[in-house]
Amino acid sequence: MLDTKDIQVLKLEEGTIVTPKGFKTAGVHAGLRYTKRDLGVVICDVPASCAAVYTLSHFQAPPIKVTKESIATENKLQAVVINSACANACTGQQGLLDAYEMRAETAAQFGIEEHLVAVASTGVIGELLQMDKIKNGIKMLQPTATKEAAEDFQTAILTTDLVMKKACYQTTINGKTISIAGAAKGSGMIHPNMATMLAFVTTDANIDSASLQIAMKEVTDVTFNQITVDGETSTNDMVLVMASGMAENEPLTPQHAEWKVFVHALHTTFEDLAKQIARDGEGATKLVEVNVTGAVSEVDARIIAKKIVGSNLVKTAIYGSDANWGRIIGAIGHSTATVNPDNVDISIGSIQMLKASQPIAFSEELAKAYLDNSEVVINVDLHIGDGFGTAWGCDLTYDYVKINASYRS
Amino acid sequence: MLDTKDIQVLKLEEGTIVTPKGFKTAGVHAGLRYTKRDLGVVICDVPASCAAVYTLSHFQAPPIKVTKESIATENKLQAVVINSACANACTGQQGLLDAYEMRAETAAQFGIEEHLVAVASTGVIGELLQMDKIKNGIKMLQPTATKEAAEDFQTAILTTDLVMKKACYQTTINGKTISIAGAAKGSGMIHPNMATMLAFVTTDANIDSASLQIAMKEVTDVTFNQITVDGETSTNDMVLVMASGMAENEPLTPQHAEWKVFVHALHTTFEDLAKQIARDGEGATKLVEVNVTGAVSEVDARIIAKKIVGSNLVKTAIYGSDANWGRIIGAIGHSTATVNPDNVDISIGSIQMLKASQPIAFSEELAKAYLDNSEVVINVDLHIGDGFGTAWGCDLTYDYVKINASYRS
Repeated sequence: MLDTKDIQVLKLEEGTIVTPKGFKTAGVHAGLRYTKRDLGVVICDVPASCAAVYTLSHFQAPPIKVTKESIATENKLQAVVINSACANACTGQQGLLDAYEMRAETAAQFGIEEHLVAVASTGVIGELLQMDKIKNGIKMLQPTATKEAAEDFQTAILTTDLVMKKACYQTTINGKTISIAGAAKGSGMIHPNMATMLAFVTTDANIDSASLQIAMKEVTDVTFNQITVDGETSTNDMVLVMASGMAENEPLTPQHAEWKVFVHALHTTFEDLAKQIARDGEGATKLVEVNVTGAVSEVDARIIAKKIVGSNLVKTAIYGSDANWGRIIGAIGHSTATVNPDNVDISIGSIQMLKASQPIAFSEELAKAYLDNSEVVINVDLHIGDGFGTAWGCDLTYDYVKINASYRS
Repeated sequence: MLDTKDIQVLKLEEGTIVTPKGFKTAGVHAGLRYTKRDLGVVICDVPASCAAVYTLSHFQAPPIKVTKESIATENKLQAVVINSACANACTGQQGLLDAYEMRAETAAQFGIEEHLVAVASTGVIGELLQMDKIKNGIKMLQPTATKEAAEDFQTAILTTDLVMKKACYQTTINGKTISIAGAAKGSGMIHPNMATMLAFVTTDANIDSASLQIAMKEVTDVTFNQITVDGETSTNDMVLVMASGMAENEPLTPQHAEWKVFVHALHTTFEDLAKQIARDGEGATKLVEVNVTGAVSEVDARIIAKKIVGSNLVKTAIYGSDANWGRIIGAIGHSTATVNPDNVDISIGSIQMLKASQPIAFSEELAKAYLDNSEVVINVDLHIGDGFGTAWGCDLTYDYVKINASYRS
């Protein structure tokens, strides 16, 4: 955890993925879905530094393979093209050829080299891309740096999401204003095995790809990976950061005096997007945040936080506004982390319910009133070390079942 | 896996936990619940050989501690007393004293030594037992070897279960008829963090406690532990076997010529009970069986089978009769087991949907018709070894959410 109290990071409510200098975007209806936009691009005026993290699934989809290959060439990207409606996963050799063709068509459309293009897909598994529609759609892409174009892009990447996810923050490095912005999709947050999580982040910070990867890994572990997306990963998950360098700060590396400022701003952007994904979980009515302190390590704290926020029984209790802390004990109890079973504290909001593993009296009425809020915070203190960690999720509702019992039809 | 084709194990539809010679039982309404029976006992005419497995939770409840202590004394048990409605978990020193008192009162009621009594509790966590009601209830226990008494016991141990779970099988060892029977409870099979799984098994086989523990461990790993109860364990889970020895076979040990016969009969009984628990999962409408073959090991096969059967997205798809094999791929993909992502076959029932990781055409209509059955079988072949394993679960429905959003109230 950074000591971040002196770092100023400002949220730009109106900012979008094209606020950082050098980026343009577009989103169109290519016809993969009935009426909604389904194809988008983010493009940079110059080859950008880049960093990415991918799904850990055994079954990485062809677009993941092609994107990895692009980045491996010279660690630069200038464009990323994304379609929704079809994940191009479990599509074998033809799927791989299609992902290459999607990359080639995008490169041709914008007159850039193929290895500067990343490809992402999200949607149903096991179906081939309708390449005629994809190719026509790519020809329709006319990126601009407008708010409208950003909204078109944010819409085009969604699947079962109810709302667009975007965030934009600014900070100052070497006296220069640095913008970081992102757009994301993902809504199957309750065990999101198949609900692809995609996030595309742009920045005008001047930073090389290797340093960007270091910063990204550090903040991904405590943000996107803490909404359980990595643990219950899809075939297509990807978080991609592109840095244009146009803010003209001195090159950022971990040795830069203001390195922590950049990392904190990136962290803030990632956390904002991750929480938006959790809040828009399929069927969700509440954002749930679990903070674990006093663990033997930060890894242990994060494991337990994620275990609690991932428990169906905790999620249903929160949906029912039921202060059933016994289910939190249950989730902690079967985690692999170190626990002293005789000294655990649990609070829901500011209402303490368990002290040294013993129930303490609390007002059920106040607890229910608190749990009726759209944001619920659970705090757990393990009292065995200094490790702390946070995870985010949502409640488990009738609508989750409804959405997922009929997703394909 | 045993070569079991020559072993005859017969199911006794009418058999109960008192079919094995030497056992009696009772179940009464002690007043912990409004009207249902809530306290039961199984007692043997003699100190019985015994074996047990317990929850792996960090927060083992006081009854688990007391039962372990009883068994540790001389590896014999003569009675087990069980209450529902209150788990006596997270109840600290008073909870432990209460569990001891429950043991002492039971020993006094039946004139046996305290260390021959096991104690089990299931229900809400964090509340103290109403010991006056427990003590009165114990005095009401009048065990008999009747079918009615068995039903009283089977009822008394239930919580949110909709149906009683019991099984009885017979086989022959040394020309003697051996009976094995059990009663079980547990219904929160979809992530059953808090849904205590209890199973009590009786047999009249002549077997020492150490051998019984060996047999029990072997079959628990492929039965009760494959309904995910151990992975998402409660504070109170327990499976307990008592053997009266009254069948008068030659003492069973792993060296006995018919050892495999006994193990197979125990396996059959455990599997029957485990499937009954899975089928009665909270809100469930379907029993789901997942068979994984071709894994590098049996452990890997069991991990993947359990991962698939535990996936919310697979469960909701089955509830919706949606042949969404992509979600099965998703569940396999993020398991820790070894997988060749290019050579996986998946069938639902007899309908193959994936061959060498590629989708193959199938009739959606036939698939939907199959998935409308109350039992659904998923078969996965990994084609990388000889390991196979099975897991059982159920679908995830609106009623699961309903039951668990309001469990305490």
